[in-house]
Amino acid sequence: MSVYTITIHGGAGTILKENMTAELEASYKNGLSEALAIGFALLENEGTALDAVKAAVISLENNILFNAGKGSVFAKDGQQEMDASIMDGKNLMAGVVSAVKNIRNPVELAYTIMTQSPHVMLTGQGAAEFAKLHGLKFEDDAYFFSQFRYDQWKQLQNSGATALDHNVSLKDQSAAQADKKFGTVGAAACDKHGNIAAATSTGGMTNKQWGRVGDSSIIGAGTYANNKTCAISCTGHGEPFIRAVAAYDVSCLIEYKGLSLNDAMNIVVNDKLMKIDGEGGMIGVDAKGNAAMIFNSDGMYRAMRNSNEENIIAIYK
Amino acid sequence: MSVYTITIHGGAGTILKENMTAELEASYKNGLSEALAIGFALLENEGTALDAVKAAVISLENNILFNAGKGSVFAKDGQQEMDASIMDGKNLMAGVVSAVKNIRNPVELAYTIMTQSPHVMLTGQGAAEFAKLHGLKFEDDAYFFSQFRYDQWKQLQNSGATALDHNVSLKDQSAAQADKKFGTVGAAACDKHGNIAAATSTGGMTNKQWGRVGDSSIIGAGTYANNKTCAISCTGHGEPFIRAVAAYDVSCLIEYKGLSLNDAMNIVVNDKLMKIDGEGGMIGVDAKGNAAMIFNSDGMYRAMRNSNEENIIAIYK
Repeated sequence: MSVYTITIHGGAGTILKENMTAELEASYKNGLSEALAIGFALLENEGTALDAVKAAVISLENNILFNAGKGSVFAKDGQQEMDASIMDGKNLMAGVVSAVKNIRNPVELAYTIMTQSPHVMLTGQGAAEFAKLHGLKFEDDAYFFSQFRYDQWKQLQNSGATALDHNVSLKDQSAAQADKKFGTVGAAACDKHGNIAAATSTGGMTNKQWGRVGDSSIIGAGTYANNKTCAISCTGHGEPFIRAVAAYDVSCLIEYKGLSLNDAMNIVVNDKLMKIDGEGGMIGVDAKGNAAMIFNSDGMYRAMRNSNEENIIAIYK
Repeated sequence: MSVYTITIHGGAGTILKENMTAELEASYKNGLSEALAIGFALLENEGTALDAVKAAVISLENNILFNAGKGSVFAKDGQQEMDASIMDGKNLMAGVVSAVKNIRNPVELAYTIMTQSPHVMLTGQGAAEFAKLHGLKFEDDAYFFSQFRYDQWKQLQNSGATALDHNVSLKDQSAAQADKKFGTVGAAACDKHGNIAAATSTGGMTNKQWGRVGDSSIIGAGTYANNKTCAISCTGHGEPFIRAVAAYDVSCLIEYKGLSLNDAMNIVVNDKLMKIDGEGGMIGVDAKGNAAMIFNSDGMYRAMRNSNEENIIAIYK
């Protein structure tokens, strides 16, 4: 029996203690703790790594604090468009959905694409039709609405700022605003049998336009899993993560250079991504149950727990 | 001054000499020859690798014989939806468009996204709005129509076959039908200064549904370029190419294992992709001007030319 492990993230960016209230910090930690517990309980009870990452990400999608599912950010047109991906390290199967609206749990749709279609990636209205066919749960706009995200969007709209919300210099550096930078959630897990999996989900960038797609829906960039190497979920400035093929690069450094999970992630996050202004981070596991959480930004909402009774929940550097 | 090289493809699949007429074979070779000449002329005249791959792919998109731009296949709803991507090995910049309609040259849109937006990937209606804003050329449905592709689609519709047209066993194995398997076009080039680039464009799969996205619009899967390693454009069954992160895997085998371009491509195409039923092939160059064209299917429309006067145009194994 392997050491079993789960690690999750709820986004990275300029998350500074001085901008956070004690209440908000407690809420984020509670959200992470809840998702971690749900995933870990599955691993304890013979659940697969795939089950665990899906369940943990669903918990984070259902939490209004995180930018995925309920509480997703608003695009330029006021719509909430979501992306998600999942990959099973046992057989390299993968499922991806991009630019969908009103799907309660995008990661569940990515899972259904992986398991119920011959395809890896579906997008837009077509993906929604597939979701309907398979009985996935839809919610109306009110379900996804959060006043906090709406106010963020209105503020960006009024400032005339467009797509890259993290490039916008906000006058009021409240905790709420600082937090919005790279809103993504994700999980990576290793089960008792040494199978690993990863999943990522996001509501994208506030005030985004032109149908921009980020790394959360790109296999190899935001998500990757292979029992031989690692399972990775990224969060950060999507464009450099796509150009760096960040998640798969970690896998290649392990497979071809013999690096450890931690060393491989460190090179990608703190060297390769930095060279192309790729701010953010990633979480990962390998098939021995090792886990790592590495970021080059001020903070990353993150947590990990394993069967050796290690248990970490953290936000800042 | 480096050896300068360009290599192009027009798709791979069950392309058999016994199913081909002499006229059709000549037409395909003419199309490849024309695109190759346009790209090569740019390289001879101080054009960049990026200019050359864009121009070669535009030529193939404008040729009704190939499944990209004009002559794209029909999706299940009778629409012609196109994907394209481009990457510059000099600076790792990339541009991608997926699920767009009526854009005359999708690769030009991918290039414009790379050079004129802060994003890498745009999709659907949003991508079309961006294209309008930047004055890209649109065409009506009639421009993209080809009787041949339309008949293919009608035949698949009548057979009740859905998305995976290459899994459909067609009774009439005419050259035309055999050819439709993995319709994609692409180019990779190395210029006099040792800069490399790659581009890929496709009309997708006949009778595809649910907004399926293939590897042609995934950086790392269908397209990748990095001066340190290689520039790659793939064509094949998109799903395994995405799961294998095929293009970037070649780059990693060169960077981390020290393999040659040819050996790295050979491992990915004939070993890694084969293990997950990844039928198809790829073309590639490195920054010394070496080129390779490797496929595991019966044929691949392909061509290459370099400043050492090598000149190849081929279809079958």
